[in-house]
Amino acid sequence: MSEHNQLLADLGLDVQLHDKLLASQAKSYRDIILSQPDRPGAMAYFDRAAHGAHGGRVREIVDAREQGAKMIGTFCVYVPEEIILAAGAIPVALCGGTTFSVPYAEKAFPRDICPLVKSTLGLALADICPYGPIKDMAVGETTCDAKKKVWDVISQSVNFHVLELPQKKTERGGDLWLHEVHEFKERVEELTGARIEPGVLAQKVRLMNRKRRLLRDLNELRMAPRPPISGKDALLVMQLALIDEPERFCNELEALVAELRQRVEDGVSPFAPGTRRVLVAGCPSVLGNWKIHHIIETSGAAVVCDESCTGTRYFENLVDEGAQAVDEQLEAIAERYLRIDCSCFTPNTERIEHVVELAGECRADAVVQYILQYCHTYNIEAIRIARALRSAGIPSLEIETDYSEEDAGQLRTRVEALLESLQGVSP
Amino acid sequence: MSEHNQLLADLGLDVQLHDKLLASQAKSYRDIILSQPDRPGAMAYFDRAAHGAHGGRVREIVDAREQGAKMIGTFCVYVPEEIILAAGAIPVALCGGTTFSVPYAEKAFPRDICPLVKSTLGLALADICPYGPIKDMAVGETTCDAKKKVWDVISQSVNFHVLELPQKKTERGGDLWLHEVHEFKERVEELTGARIEPGVLAQKVRLMNRKRRLLRDLNELRMAPRPPISGKDALLVMQLALIDEPERFCNELEALVAELRQRVEDGVSPFAPGTRRVLVAGCPSVLGNWKIHHIIETSGAAVVCDESCTGTRYFENLVDEGAQAVDEQLEAIAERYLRIDCSCFTPNTERIEHVVELAGECRADAVVQYILQYCHTYNIEAIRIARALRSAGIPSLEIETDYSEEDAGQLRTRVEALLESLQGVSP
Repeated sequence: MSEHNQLLADLGLDVQLHDKLLASQAKSYRDIILSQPDRPGAMAYFDRAAHGAHGGRVREIVDAREQGAKMIGTFCVYVPEEIILAAGAIPVALCGGTTFSVPYAEKAFPRDICPLVKSTLGLALADICPYGPIKDMAVGETTCDAKKKVWDVISQSVNFHVLELPQKKTERGGDLWLHEVHEFKERVEELTGARIEPGVLAQKVRLMNRKRRLLRDLNELRMAPRPPISGKDALLVMQLALIDEPERFCNELEALVAELRQRVEDGVSPFAPGTRRVLVAGCPSVLGNWKIHHIIETSGAAVVCDESCTGTRYFENLVDEGAQAVDEQLEAIAERYLRIDCSCFTPNTERIEHVVELAGECRADAVVQYILQYCHTYNIEAIRIARALRSAGIPSLEIETDYSEEDAGQLRTRVEALLESLQGVSP
Repeated sequence: MSEHNQLLADLGLDVQLHDKLLASQAKSYRDIILSQPDRPGAMAYFDRAAHGAHGGRVREIVDAREQGAKMIGTFCVYVPEEIILAAGAIPVALCGGTTFSVPYAEKAFPRDICPLVKSTLGLALADICPYGPIKDMAVGETTCDAKKKVWDVISQSVNFHVLELPQKKTERGGDLWLHEVHEFKERVEELTGARIEPGVLAQKVRLMNRKRRLLRDLNELRMAPRPPISGKDALLVMQLALIDEPERFCNELEALVAELRQRVEDGVSPFAPGTRRVLVAGCPSVLGNWKIHHIIETSGAAVVCDESCTGTRYFENLVDEGAQAVDEQLEAIAERYLRIDCSCFTPNTERIEHVVELAGECRADAVVQYILQYCHTYNIEAIRIARALRSAGIPSLEIETDYSEEDAGQLRTRVEALLESLQGVSP
């Protein structure tokens, strides 16, 4: 047994099944990511980080925990990572992007909940998530029915904290959310035994803002007439933003952004001139899931922007760095996070307008609304989004799908039909 | 054209399609409700009221509106009817219980949302809901993802108000809800032009409490060793509670309760001695939907209690009648409604405990968890409920289904298997 597998075995994982998971992931990674032409050199780090998601990163966290650090698992971009970092704890997104683990969830949970939730649950239930045994707490939120009710079940056996998001963006809703952020800070302090000091919190706010700015830079570079990076690679970077050590991640992303800037100047792109541009809007695609991006980019188009939690929703809007006292800092944090335009809100007119705006900014020829199966909120919101895009003269397509490959052929046909319908329209 | 159809035509309804709907409903009603043996005489009123749901009740509201009254459509037991009534307005639940209208919703909305939402939407979209054109406002709430996001779409074309329910029952959540109740009162005042006076509000609180007490009396009578009324008839009464004029409804229900009391004394029951007793827990069955009750009661068992929004959740807990000023009254109202243990809350331990408690109180031999398809909250909560029932030694079964008859045979087999498994256990 390798040293790493010995570690996993010591953590109580099913090493044999975990090997199978890795083998299936390695194959997808080769076929979907590594096979792409003209990748930026700086992607080498992110390839290693993806490879290390169940390897080096786990070792790193195990070592940090031996030094007394705590790991906090998250499932959503609403969890204020600044607070976790300021307490010396390590935030890691626990979202599953693989169809491999879905059947293990379906044994214990309803089949008709979204693949993201099932994949995540399945990794834990099948003992193949290395973060499961090393997390000291998990933090859920109330953004959707499926997740909200899953917390009820798993909090019976896991140290768990639920953050309540309001459902309308009213003043009262804002008050409730601010209170939740305060309570979360207390819970994190209790877990870590640390007291969050304004100086350290300010430093972590700056760190998270740096990450957001760099991701925004990456996103802006994709808006170039010839994007310097594929949509799949840009997505991979976003996926790792939710898992990787943030300082190192920022340094590596800085190098990538510099390279991409040079590529734009030099006119280097993985895409031929005139390649159709697609904005993907809707549900997140977490690590392991490149399904819709792969279909689009192997159908002759480029994904030039992600309007999702593995995209703009993660990095848009900064936390105000001017606050001094912890209370003010928490207020600034609460304010920034509440601006996220998740479909969990009613009404959510700001998102409708934002999608149209983004499509314009990235000069999208078309929008693909990506909806994870049984995700009621994005699925129903798609009606208003499609209507708004139609009014703006932007062609769009709604795709509701899971993580399996069963419908890949059918989806490819639909995407190709969308792209063909653009012929005659100047790119 | 009949006088009534002329009225419907004047309201803009598709009269021909509406006739088809009524014909399909009349057939179900005959087969499912009227065909039952030994029905209480006082059910005659409720049969007429069911028949009049698209007839006399509509005429009555049209007439009231000509006198200046407003009609407010509701979709949930969280809407404080006291407030609507105190403003001289008429609350009517707009929930669809028929599979007939589902296809009309599926043309415009996702297929994988719950049948209750689809049936309701379909009635409106196919122009066969007589309440659609006569409602002056509709009130939605944020109890589930599907409804919450449907409001976003229909509020584009309908005078709409959304009540935000908190998702955790915390002090802050309570504050938010109280504020929502205040805002709702203001919105109702604005719509009606009335000012809600404490005297009238107190009177409507008493009226609603009277309704709740009578429904509770009905429920308690079903707990008799030989229930004096079938589960289907009790459900029918509950369904009409959401639609009928409340004063008249209470008077008629009082007569029914008196008759049932007598039947218990006389040992009159539609069920043979020793009939197995079933508690149905979970999603509501609104007017037109008797599917699961019919399957259970034609499989040789009796439904003796409904733990649902068309059951205990509608009538449990009274509004405190002691409050004098409007603010205090609204506080008492908010407090009562927030005690409802809908699966929209996280955690919802009180419901888990309450189902076990109710099963004991009504001496259920088994519990059937009734889950409308794609209802994530009740579906996932069913896991904890089943576990709690198992711990308490109460057999249970989870049924996830829609409004169609396609799975009726399969469900019957499962219910029969549950009942057979009870053999040897003394009733």
